[in-house]
Amino acid sequence: MNVEIRLAKEIDMEDVLSLIKELAIFEKEPNAVTLTAKDLIAHAFSNSPLFVCFVAIFQNEIVGMSLGYPRYSTWKGPTMHLEDLIVTKKMRNYGIGKALFSSFIKYSHSQGVKRVEWAVLNWNTDAIKFYEANGATIYNDWQIAQMNEKAMNNFIIKNQ
Amino acid sequence: MNVEIRLAKEIDMEDVLSLIKELAIFEKEPNAVTLTAKDLIAHAFSNSPLFVCFVAIFQNEIVGMSLGYPRYSTWKGPTMHLEDLIVTKKMRNYGIGKALFSSFIKYSHSQGVKRVEWAVLNWNTDAIKFYEANGATIYNDWQIAQMNEKAMNNFIIKNQ
Repeated sequence: MNVEIRLAKEIDMEDVLSLIKELAIFEKEPNAVTLTAKDLIAHAFSNSPLFVCFVAIFQNEIVGMSLGYPRYSTWKGPTMHLEDLIVTKKMRNYGIGKALFSSFIKYSHSQGVKRVEWAVLNWNTDAIKFYEANGATIYNDWQIAQMNEKAMNNFIIKNQ
Repeated sequence: MNVEIRLAKEIDMEDVLSLIKELAIFEKEPNAVTLTAKDLIAHAFSNSPLFVCFVAIFQNEIVGMSLGYPRYSTWKGPTMHLEDLIVTKKMRNYGIGKALFSSFIKYSHSQGVKRVEWAVLNWNTDAIKFYEANGATIYNDWQIAQMNEKAMNNFIIKNQ
């Protein structure tokens, strides 16, 4: 199967947004995506890009992507975070996900970081198996905490 | 109690490193910290700082800190991540942790982000109670995955 993996371009962001939405549906958060393709372009193609994105091309169509950005560990220093990895449904099980994952790991390694990190849903057993088979460690003792905009606003009003 | 919260300075990084190590011991990873104070200075006090840090001062001593950096959500856009929040053991239960947390949330809000995120150990029930009482949501269905330097190297060798 002739699939090309390359860095995303501005013109790809509509297709990347479609994949972000497909992933949000898979993750049972169909209404969570508030960004537009214009936002993605502004965030990734400026002087200080907020993320890096790889796309997989098959027969001139974008069929998958991996997307991430730098983070920081007070234990290890600079790290990278893999935010999204998705292959469109009809193109799964051909190794495209692994190729996109691989591009992101190699890119991270080339940046000299000591760690790549990401989050996976605990019911996404296929993904967990894939990550473990490729040498990742899944941690069961850490939980993710978040404050959204409303929670931040409420907190700030209460703690002026 | 007269505690001042302010942005950290270069000269604070030795004390900040001590707090990072105290937190690593609390988190049962006493040997995980490989960074030096010099590294922290290089990472935070350059033209492109990798993190922001607030310190709590009591009687001219640094007794706590909060530290974080920008992240990105493909659903919401720019976010902030709270990497570390610690008050030295003898100074806990005086509200210093809340003041440091508050400084970080207010800073994040001033940056216009739509979300603040962090990780908490599932046995750290005091922290979880504190975060929930202040409006945070703790997610039980996401797990953290990581590849360290060795795992990255092995993966790259196998997938050349």
